[in-house]
Amino acid sequence: MRPTTPVSELIRKKREGQSLNTEELSQLVEGFANGSIPDYQISAWLMASFLCGMSHEETFLLTRLMRNSGKTFNWRELSSNFAQARFADKHSTGGVGDKVSLILAPLAALLDLKVPMMSGRGLGHTGGTVDKLESISGFSMQPSEKLMIQCLDEVGFVMMSQSHEVCPADRKLYSLRDVTSTVESVPLITASIVSKKWAEGIDAIVFDVKCGSAAFMGHVEEARNLGESLVRTAQLAGLKAVSCITRMEEPLGSMIGNALEVEESLWILSDTYPTETHRRVIEPLKNLCIDLSCEMALLAGTRTDLQTTRDECEKALEDGRAIALFEKMAKAQGAVDGWRSKLPRTQHCLTVEAPQDGLVAEIHSRKLGILGLSLGIGRQKTEDKVDPAVGFEVLVAPGESVVKGQPLLKLHCHSKADIEFYSADILSSFLIEADQSKVRALTGATPHPLIMERISQ
Amino acid sequence: MRPTTPVSELIRKKREGQSLNTEELSQLVEGFANGSIPDYQISAWLMASFLCGMSHEETFLLTRLMRNSGKTFNWRELSSNFAQARFADKHSTGGVGDKVSLILAPLAALLDLKVPMMSGRGLGHTGGTVDKLESISGFSMQPSEKLMIQCLDEVGFVMMSQSHEVCPADRKLYSLRDVTSTVESVPLITASIVSKKWAEGIDAIVFDVKCGSAAFMGHVEEARNLGESLVRTAQLAGLKAVSCITRMEEPLGSMIGNALEVEESLWILSDTYPTETHRRVIEPLKNLCIDLSCEMALLAGTRTDLQTTRDECEKALEDGRAIALFEKMAKAQGAVDGWRSKLPRTQHCLTVEAPQDGLVAEIHSRKLGILGLSLGIGRQKTEDKVDPAVGFEVLVAPGESVVKGQPLLKLHCHSKADIEFYSADILSSFLIEADQSKVRALTGATPHPLIMERISQ
Repeated sequence: MRPTTPVSELIRKKREGQSLNTEELSQLVEGFANGSIPDYQISAWLMASFLCGMSHEETFLLTRLMRNSGKTFNWRELSSNFAQARFADKHSTGGVGDKVSLILAPLAALLDLKVPMMSGRGLGHTGGTVDKLESISGFSMQPSEKLMIQCLDEVGFVMMSQSHEVCPADRKLYSLRDVTSTVESVPLITASIVSKKWAEGIDAIVFDVKCGSAAFMGHVEEARNLGESLVRTAQLAGLKAVSCITRMEEPLGSMIGNALEVEESLWILSDTYPTETHRRVIEPLKNLCIDLSCEMALLAGTRTDLQTTRDECEKALEDGRAIALFEKMAKAQGAVDGWRSKLPRTQHCLTVEAPQDGLVAEIHSRKLGILGLSLGIGRQKTEDKVDPAVGFEVLVAPGESVVKGQPLLKLHCHSKADIEFYSADILSSFLIEADQSKVRALTGATPHPLIMERISQ
Repeated sequence: MRPTTPVSELIRKKREGQSLNTEELSQLVEGFANGSIPDYQISAWLMASFLCGMSHEETFLLTRLMRNSGKTFNWRELSSNFAQARFADKHSTGGVGDKVSLILAPLAALLDLKVPMMSGRGLGHTGGTVDKLESISGFSMQPSEKLMIQCLDEVGFVMMSQSHEVCPADRKLYSLRDVTSTVESVPLITASIVSKKWAEGIDAIVFDVKCGSAAFMGHVEEARNLGESLVRTAQLAGLKAVSCITRMEEPLGSMIGNALEVEESLWILSDTYPTETHRRVIEPLKNLCIDLSCEMALLAGTRTDLQTTRDECEKALEDGRAIALFEKMAKAQGAVDGWRSKLPRTQHCLTVEAPQDGLVAEIHSRKLGILGLSLGIGRQKTEDKVDPAVGFEVLVAPGESVVKGQPLLKLHCHSKADIEFYSADILSSFLIEADQSKVRALTGATPHPLIMERISQ
C-alpha cells in the first residue's frame, strides 16, 4: 500500500485555498466511495471546496475520478456498426416545463447523430425526463445494453435513466451535498454533470444552461460561469462542447406535468396543435428544440450549415418523420400499443380566467413549479412519488393582451375542490398589467429568442 | 414541538456569511449533542464557520450553549463559607514545559483567591497539567464534589481534570473539529475555552495566550485576535477577564517531562534550586508565575497594588508558605506520604554537550516538544499513554555564552541507547552561534520578559 496523507491534512490544504493533486483527490473520492473515509470528513472538504473554489485542473480531476468510479460506455467497441457514428447528447440544468429532450432526441437522430440519452428524475420545482417518459404505459427507462445498442443502431437514440452503475461516486457525493448546503458550487456542479455525460461515451455535448428567476442560476454572470466551466471541463475530457445560456422566466411551452408534457411533445413532433393559441404559446419551445438539435449536429460534425439544418428539422416535424421516429423508439423500449391514447389524464380540467383586461407582463414559472410540487407533479424528496396525470396548461404568453374572462391556464386535477384550493395561487403567478404601454416597454413587442448566449470555449 | 428550520438551511445561512441566532445555534448544538443531527452536517457547518467567521454575539451564544450542555458549578450555593470568596482561574493555550498552573495555583490561593482549577491532558507537542500531576503517587484528579469544596475552603485551590459531565457538547465538537481541520478558528477556540472556564463557576479569568514558533499562534497578531476574543466573550459571560500574550520560543523553565516538571515546580515553590544554573534558567518562568498570579488577584479584587502583590508572592516562595500549601493540597487529594521522593525517575540521565564555544542563539522548543512525543512525554492520540519519568532538562538559556563540552541538556531516559538515538536531534534544537556579536544583537543582553502584551478589553 502506498502511504497516504491524513485526510485532515487534505481538508486543511483545501481550506487554505490550495489545489489538491491527482493522488490527493483520488484518496478522497475513492475513500468516500468505498466507505473508508467517513461522511463528516467529506462534508468538511465539500464545504471548503465550496467556499475556496477549485482550480480548472482540480475540477477536471474530480470529474475524471467520478466518471471512473463506475460503468462507462464505449459504443464503438460494443458494435462495429458504430465505427463511423457520431455520438452526441444535450444536458439541461433544469427548468419548469422543460421537455426539450423528448423533441430534441428524435430530431438529432434524424440529423444522423447517435444519442444515448441518460436522464434523471425531477427534484424540487423542475421536472425530470424520466418521470415524464414513465407516464407512457409499458415504457422502460432501464433498457438492457443489448437493447441500447439496438435502439442506437436502428432508431438512432435511446432514452434511459441513469443506472446505479454509472458514476456511483457522484451519486453518493450528491446526496451528501444535498444535506450539507454544498450544491450551488460551479466546480462541484460541473464535475457532477460532465462525469455522467462523459461516462455515456459521447463525442459531443451541448449544455443548456438555464438562466433566470425560475432557474438554478438567476443571473447571467452565474450562468456564464457555469457554462464556461462545463465547456472547459468537457473539452479537457476530450469532448466537443458548447454551452447555450437560455432564458428561464416563463414556463417552457404550455404544459407543466408529466403526461401533459409528453402530449405537448407529440404536438411539436407532429406539428399539430389543438388550437392556434397553443401553437403560439409553444413556438419558442419548438424553436429552442430545433436550435439545440442543430448545435449538436454542427458540433459533432454531421451537418455544417445552420440554416439548412434548421430547415431540415422544420421539415422533419412537418412531414411526420420526427413523430414516427419517437414512436419507433417508444415501441422499441416497451410502450404498449395505443400508448398515446392511454396517457394518464385527470377527471377534471378547470379554467383560471383573467380577472381584468390587460397585458400579460410576467408568468412566474418558479411559482407554478412550486405549486406543481404540492399538486403532485414533482417531488420534494427523492422517495416521493409523482402523479403522472396532474398539471398546468398555460394558455397565454408574456406580452400578449388578454380580456377579462379569457382563460389563462387550465388546471388538470383530480377533484373540483382543487380549483378553489389553487386558483388564488395560480392567479398570483400571472402579472396582468392594465397599462399596456408599460408592458410593451418591459417585454418588447415580439418574443425574445430563448438562447441568450453561446459559449464554445 | 416548535417548528425547526432544516439543518441544511442553517448551514446555508452560515455559508453565506450570515450570523445564526440563538434558536438556530441551539438547534445545531443541541441536535449534535443528542445525536439527532448527524456529524456530516455539523462538520459542514464547522467548516463554513471556520471560513466565514462568527460574529461576537454568535461566539458568545455558542459558548453559552456549550457551557449549558453539562454540569456547572455554583460554589456560593454549595457552601455558605464561600459567600464572600472570589473565585479565579488561569487558562493557557499551551506551551512546551508549561507547568505554570502548579506554581500559580498555590500563589493565587495565598493571595486570598479560591481556585477551582480544571485542566486537560496533553495532546501533541505541548504538555497537560493532568499528566504532570498524575506522576504524584496516589494523587487523584477526580476529587468528589465534597472534596472540591473542602479543598477550596481549607487549602484555597483544587486541581482536577475536566469531568465528562462538564461541557459535553464542547468535547464532542472538539473531536469532530480535530478530524475535519477546523481547529484553528478564533471563534471556535474561544467558545471551547470560555465555555469550560465559565462552567467552573469563577468570577475572574486570566488567559495566557502563548505566542511564538513553539505555540499554536505563531504571530502576535493572531495571538492578539484570540486574546481579544477570549476577553470579550468571557466578559459577555459576566466574568472579569484579561489576556496576557506571552512569548513561547524556548521551553518554559528547565524541565520538559511530567514528573520532572512537578520536581521543577517544587523547586520554584520552595525557592530552592539544585544549582545556580537552574535558578538562572528557571527565573523567567518563576516571574511569569508571579505575574499571572498577580493578574488574577488584581482582576478578582483581592489585591489592589501590583508591586506589593509581587513582593508578597516572592516572600511566599521564600518563607515556605507556597510549598506548604501545595503539599497540603497534594495530601488532601490523595498523595501518599513521601510522594516527592517517590516521583518516577529514569535509570539514566545522559548529558548532551556544546559542540563548540559560542552563544546560545535559540532553543527550538517545538523541536524538543515533538522529540518528547517519541520519547513518551506526551501523546499523539488521545488513547496513547504517557511515560511519567522521561524528559529533558535544559541547562542553558538563550543569550548565554557556552564553552565546548559544557552541558546543554540532560536526557532522562530508560536506556543508554536512547542518548545515541536522540543526541543529534537534541543538538539540532540548539543554535550555538560562534560570532557572539551577532547573537547579542539578536537576543539582547538580558532576557525578555515573557509577557509581551496585556489585553483587558
